[in-house]
Amino acid sequence: MNIEELAANLRNFEGVTRKKPIADIVSIFETVRSEYGEVIDDFGDDAAIIDIGTDDVILFAADAIWGRIVNKSPWWTGYTSVVVNVNDISAMGGRPLAMVNVMASSDLESTEEIMKGIRDGISKFGVPMVGGHMHPDTPYNSLAVAIIGIAKKDSVIRSDSAKPGDVVIVAYDMDGRVGKNSPYSWDTTSFKDADVVRERFMVMQEIGEKKLVTAGKDISNPGTIGTLGMLCEVSRVGASVDLSKIPCPEGLDFEQWLKIYPATGYVVTAKAEHADECVEIFENAGIKAAVIGEINDSQVIDVYNDSGKAVVFDFKESGITGI
Amino acid sequence: MNIEELAANLRNFEGVTRKKPIADIVSIFETVRSEYGEVIDDFGDDAAIIDIGTDDVILFAADAIWGRIVNKSPWWTGYTSVVVNVNDISAMGGRPLAMVNVMASSDLESTEEIMKGIRDGISKFGVPMVGGHMHPDTPYNSLAVAIIGIAKKDSVIRSDSAKPGDVVIVAYDMDGRVGKNSPYSWDTTSFKDADVVRERFMVMQEIGEKKLVTAGKDISNPGTIGTLGMLCEVSRVGASVDLSKIPCPEGLDFEQWLKIYPATGYVVTAKAEHADECVEIFENAGIKAAVIGEINDSQVIDVYNDSGKAVVFDFKESGITGI
Repeated sequence: MNIEELAANLRNFEGVTRKKPIADIVSIFETVRSEYGEVIDDFGDDAAIIDIGTDDVILFAADAIWGRIVNKSPWWTGYTSVVVNVNDISAMGGRPLAMVNVMASSDLESTEEIMKGIRDGISKFGVPMVGGHMHPDTPYNSLAVAIIGIAKKDSVIRSDSAKPGDVVIVAYDMDGRVGKNSPYSWDTTSFKDADVVRERFMVMQEIGEKKLVTAGKDISNPGTIGTLGMLCEVSRVGASVDLSKIPCPEGLDFEQWLKIYPATGYVVTAKAEHADECVEIFENAGIKAAVIGEINDSQVIDVYNDSGKAVVFDFKESGITGI
Repeated sequence: MNIEELAANLRNFEGVTRKKPIADIVSIFETVRSEYGEVIDDFGDDAAIIDIGTDDVILFAADAIWGRIVNKSPWWTGYTSVVVNVNDISAMGGRPLAMVNVMASSDLESTEEIMKGIRDGISKFGVPMVGGHMHPDTPYNSLAVAIIGIAKKDSVIRSDSAKPGDVVIVAYDMDGRVGKNSPYSWDTTSFKDADVVRERFMVMQEIGEKKLVTAGKDISNPGTIGTLGMLCEVSRVGASVDLSKIPCPEGLDFEQWLKIYPATGYVVTAKAEHADECVEIFENAGIKAAVIGEINDSQVIDVYNDSGKAVVFDFKESGITGI
């Protein structure tokens, strides 16, 4: 494939374009500041950071599952709602504490399957569901989950702090399978023992506490380049990525892989002198990691390989979330 | 109205019967305990209580708005989602810290109205919205909001700690209006200054810190007797209520009032010697309060007046939530 075409496909991927409404929401809400506690960071990150006046901060996030997946596989909806929420906390170097949910369902069978999925998720990750709200009489099925976590204030991994000159590192659990419900989901957890899963998703806590990265984010629906783009957008920087350096599971189409939500996948930025140690910690936890590029001050995300170079995002023209 | 008929109407009120599915959810989830922090209390209360190893605990809750209201009044949906979540924290004697939301909408006009409602709610209560998730392409409108708060560990007002011999106190902001969208909603905040609203909803923090109550809960969709019933159910006690002692706004039908979600309304239990001081604190904050009955060990909630006595709930036969 032509690299210009690949760049356009990544830019116009639905996982990226669905992020657009965030800026409108933020601009409506941002006028109100808390009367009761200091909010250090909010919409631009995987989780908001709340100062509670101690050495720890509380992390707080919410996520939901795409409607079409809810109807296709209620079990997966429940299960993956845990995965994505736990990732919001672990990606920031935090320990997840507890979750709450709001479930809407008209049909008992779907409800039970969603709940079994949630139960299997919380068993796997060891994070309890402590409350919630049930709509037993809606004409649709939906699931929203919120999570809180805790982290040392000086070890939190934010996404708005990448600096020109930093290297870009991606890390994925390559031992996975494309999900049954979407070509863009990658299951790395449902078939593994809880011990292995918990060790892998807690790797970011070690990296945060060792202060090895300047920024980081879990790779979610926008895929690898889309997530790097969101990180660069809120950091007000650009990046240049060598596509040949991105690890890709054998037999998987490369463009598909770049669009996948890898479940256990992170993009981080680091000072060059910390890159090796950072990669080593990922690899010791069973997660494949590689330096794939560099942060610059261009406000452009470009990708290159032997055949040439192309711009995926140009924030001078248009943002991903607009935050 | 015949008192037996009133008791039956309160028992079979939709605001009560919709609480039924909670027990099924809890029984599926309760097998999993946290690996990362101690959960002191979960589903039975307005908010879960999470121990973070300091003198403070984190309170964590989620709520959503009935589907039919979302379509009738998107503004009210957004506004009241803030009210109900803030109440979950304030009812336990906590300070609200921050909220996150998951919004689903197919239509831009509804989305904007919901967001304006949220914005007006967060301006009124001073609690920021710090994150969330937006589904811009669903065939329905829905809104789920989660909230965190903080409270001193020894001052939290739980709902599972009422004891036989305690008195039952109800407290309402009588300066309100029946909502436009439901005969069972009571708006006490949208037309008042933020200062007044914030002083009133923080009254439970003072009551908690002075340790004047043994248990408490905000009166929500199940109405006054339904909410008292839920408190008694998780406390494993009964209660006897003198209907003539319940304050009712002038000109409002009494049965309707008993079913109303009063927005700023609480049911608390207290040792008899603390009842007067407790009522006084409510009244000083502009909230009408009265002793309306007594907790006993019967596991039955009965109501009486001049015309007789009738059982509303008998937990030996059937629970409200079944928790």
